[in-house]
Amino acid sequence: MSDAVFSYDRLVQFSKAVFSRIGCSQQDAQQATNVLLSADLRGIDSHGIARLGGYVRLWEAKRVNATPQLKILHQTPSTATVDGDSGLGLVVAPKAMQMAIDKAKQVGTGWVSVQNSNHFGIAGYHAMMALEEEMIGICMTNASPLVAPTFSVERLLGTNPICVAIPAGKQPPFVADMATTTAANGKLEILQRKNEQAPSGWIQNREGESSTDPHELKSGGALLPLGGDKEHGSHKGYALGSVVDIFSAILSGANYGPWVPPFPAYVPMPTGMPGKGIGHFFGAMRIDAFRPAAEFKLHMDQWIERFRNAKTIEGFDRVLIPGDPERETEIKRRKDGIPLNNAVLDDIKTLAQKFNLPSL
Amino acid sequence: MSDAVFSYDRLVQFSKAVFSRIGCSQQDAQQATNVLLSADLRGIDSHGIARLGGYVRLWEAKRVNATPQLKILHQTPSTATVDGDSGLGLVVAPKAMQMAIDKAKQVGTGWVSVQNSNHFGIAGYHAMMALEEEMIGICMTNASPLVAPTFSVERLLGTNPICVAIPAGKQPPFVADMATTTAANGKLEILQRKNEQAPSGWIQNREGESSTDPHELKSGGALLPLGGDKEHGSHKGYALGSVVDIFSAILSGANYGPWVPPFPAYVPMPTGMPGKGIGHFFGAMRIDAFRPAAEFKLHMDQWIERFRNAKTIEGFDRVLIPGDPERETEIKRRKDGIPLNNAVLDDIKTLAQKFNLPSL
Repeated sequence: MSDAVFSYDRLVQFSKAVFSRIGCSQQDAQQATNVLLSADLRGIDSHGIARLGGYVRLWEAKRVNATPQLKILHQTPSTATVDGDSGLGLVVAPKAMQMAIDKAKQVGTGWVSVQNSNHFGIAGYHAMMALEEEMIGICMTNASPLVAPTFSVERLLGTNPICVAIPAGKQPPFVADMATTTAANGKLEILQRKNEQAPSGWIQNREGESSTDPHELKSGGALLPLGGDKEHGSHKGYALGSVVDIFSAILSGANYGPWVPPFPAYVPMPTGMPGKGIGHFFGAMRIDAFRPAAEFKLHMDQWIERFRNAKTIEGFDRVLIPGDPERETEIKRRKDGIPLNNAVLDDIKTLAQKFNLPSL
Repeated sequence: MSDAVFSYDRLVQFSKAVFSRIGCSQQDAQQATNVLLSADLRGIDSHGIARLGGYVRLWEAKRVNATPQLKILHQTPSTATVDGDSGLGLVVAPKAMQMAIDKAKQVGTGWVSVQNSNHFGIAGYHAMMALEEEMIGICMTNASPLVAPTFSVERLLGTNPICVAIPAGKQPPFVADMATTTAANGKLEILQRKNEQAPSGWIQNREGESSTDPHELKSGGALLPLGGDKEHGSHKGYALGSVVDIFSAILSGANYGPWVPPFPAYVPMPTGMPGKGIGHFFGAMRIDAFRPAAEFKLHMDQWIERFRNAKTIEGFDRVLIPGDPERETEIKRRKDGIPLNNAVLDDIKTLAQKFNLPSL
């Protein structure tokens, strides 16, 4: 059976209603919805409305505060450290990114580290806020431990994504939004649902041996850092994920490494947590803090055109620029609607009943 | 035959003498030597004194200016764009990194993009300058095209390294210094010398097919971005290498992508170059721009200790922290000396004759 398809506007309406029901202000419900559904538009289905129920369950478990008051704990002209007051990351993150942008307006760049937050949806949404201001946007977050460092059987890092969004001129922007693992957890979830094998290099079993069983994480296995194994540079993926963890949590005072709180509300919190909530890190760099924006855009266009028109390996029709697939999915889904699978629809029906809302 | 071994001080003496002979000031000759030999100390032999002859040949080809006058082209309180005046990257880079550090002292962070430079040795040296100031150091550079983006047969990116250096308290610092490819070119050169096969996932042939022949680059092949192939995330390595290229060269006005000048002086310059020289990017973030340094260090120590003591996969004795292998090599080589192979020694003999210096 093929997935049911819903218009973006219909999903917006439902998501806003749910966030309002848990006590978010109208403005915050809209903001959270914009962030959440940007994932569905861009084809990162694991981070979109599929997670709406998960956020509600975190609120029910009193791990999400629906009316957070953000506090600046520390700042300089180009930096700030923010306490997210246990808010939805979907609400906290755009505010923190806006602070980075405001600082960049003043002194060229802005850098904001956030503690005491929750899952913030896709990194791409926040980094891309900078594009409208002719700035480069940078965004990262830590996440609960699913990833084993090179040589470790223990899971000590999240899939810790990094996004870098760079404006261009006539060309669409460059947007690299990626987990620092070989494969994002969402890709593994798809294989789990279909009961298909994973490629080697994505996961290891509880002994640290390479495995292709997508259910391995349920029995003590782990996702692997980008690179897969030492011979293929997994120590680099491990280092990147570590940098994300340190910038997001050790700069801010959030939890890090194995102590990052889990997204599923039924999973017990780690013991001995050294910080508050999960951590994010945001950066904004004004293009014209380095050179005139028009010059930059001209060369960025030339860069993109040269790469996009590179001679391809036989069987592939073009070289992609980071952000191309997501932008194309967004165009399609705004027009044709967003497909949702049955598991997601069931979760949405439960939410609708819980909050006495018309279901989709 | 095992390699001959030389003391660090002996190599310093020789390197300083050579840089002086090409016209560097005493101070610049010392600086260039410190950077160059930090690679030999840290075990990154491909970037150390093995390249001394290469720098001289660039100077002979009039591509290196031994007495550069750095110019700030553009700046804000937290940023600067610098023209390296065709200087040795070994001299230009520490000056640019110092500017980033000085800006961080004033406004919390500093970010410097550099055009019109040359190869700067190991990224680690420059990023680690921040450590002594209780700052996080970031350093990247573009390089001549050896790497094919995902799906491309053309080489459009350099091995474009990134270094992030983060101070700790009682623990030694975290220093991740890595090419954005599966394997650095230096590792391939070792296989070429030994005539050994490369692991799959490191290189492709001129048609874009996976290859294990380490000589493939001489016949139109390419190094692969971190990840190796699409299924294992090579689009992420490609994106990382691209970010390095854009920050280093499109922000600064240097050459980018396929137009980055080659290191070997005998290789002709690309045609239609869009910028000046090669580009670098430097960042410095003051720890106490985010939180008190003592607090940060306490948690950084806990992070390092937790990761280092993780349970290992059978057969491996420990989980490494980025920077561990290089630091341990440096301790050993400062004590026991630095091994140089015959090819490097021959090049040094030629240099000694050319400049009428006593050889090693």
